[in-house]
Amino acid sequence: MSEAHTSTQARGSRLVQRVLEATLSQLAQVGYERLAIPEIADLVGANKTSLYRRWPTKLELVADALKLAMQHTEAAPDTGSLRGDLLALTRVMGEFTQSSLGTAVLRLVLAQDTHPELRELAAAAQQAGRDHGPWLVIQRALARGELSASSDPSLLLFTLAGGILHRVFVERVRVDDAYLQRLVDLLLLGAKPR
Amino acid sequence: MSEAHTSTQARGSRLVQRVLEATLSQLAQVGYERLAIPEIADLVGANKTSLYRRWPTKLELVADALKLAMQHTEAAPDTGSLRGDLLALTRVMGEFTQSSLGTAVLRLVLAQDTHPELRELAAAAQQAGRDHGPWLVIQRALARGELSASSDPSLLLFTLAGGILHRVFVERVRVDDAYLQRLVDLLLLGAKPR
Repeated sequence: MSEAHTSTQARGSRLVQRVLEATLSQLAQVGYERLAIPEIADLVGANKTSLYRRWPTKLELVADALKLAMQHTEAAPDTGSLRGDLLALTRVMGEFTQSSLGTAVLRLVLAQDTHPELRELAAAAQQAGRDHGPWLVIQRALARGELSASSDPSLLLFTLAGGILHRVFVERVRVDDAYLQRLVDLLLLGAKPR
Repeated sequence: MSEAHTSTQARGSRLVQRVLEATLSQLAQVGYERLAIPEIADLVGANKTSLYRRWPTKLELVADALKLAMQHTEAAPDTGSLRGDLLALTRVMGEFTQSSLGTAVLRLVLAQDTHPELRELAAAAQQAGRDHGPWLVIQRALARGELSASSDPSLLLFTLAGGILHRVFVERVRVDDAYLQRLVDLLLLGAKPR
């Protein structure tokens, strides 16, 4: 392979990255409905024809952008305790949720009602998430006896994510470590006196 | 007051109700940005001038619609136990969240980023919510010793709401009683073995 060819590939891959980032930023700002490939081409200073060659439809472009966004949620912390691992996980969730990525994903999720073609894409993103870090954390905690055998790992992880979702989007308060500790302790220990 | 006058008032009040319901439905479907008073006038078969007379701006119309929507969240169940009360509360939250009202409110909450004039309105709606039913439930539970004195009532209620938010909008699963029982028990008892 010639050096010129390699350099063209590298430029191409940088362009792809910039296009996907611009797509996520537009998803966060204007949502799926008003996202337009020509506008994204303008934003990154590329020709819209080259974007259409790689992503013939908006849906395909958004699918690739979503894959990039979800890379941020694949952490598998191993601090030695369930509490420590959950704190590390919720820090990642908190950063993700309050970044423009989080807004982009939430807007995409809401757009499913009016754009059924998005449903498959959202379901695939969720399914992919299930094979990653958080489930390792749960398996190790079960092995250490830190979770009751009857506990429901999905419910625990989804409720942590839901608490953060409410904090960021409904209460409009930034997620800090003091909040995450209170959230994790509530879900581990419960609100009833022990 | 003449009978004719009363009947005009009644018609007026029915129209207000229909306009506010149409506003909530449009908020859920198209969001704040694309909401338009003339379209709502068309939907309810009224003259747009009469709508503009009552609500000179879209923001004033949305504020009144939001007040109507939030009436649904004022329940104060009194079943005799914290678990029973929280189940009753989460049933109301679940119905609200998965109705078009819930979508309308969430879209409004997301629109704050690009429409700062909505912030005051959302903050007022939240503040109003704090004086209502859920806080009575907490006070009675504290009096009965069902909550540890160090517990954080806001965190408990907001995390319940967050779990439902995640279930409805991210997981896209309908909230049923089996789910609500698992959610309430997780938050009351915690995931660690007792």
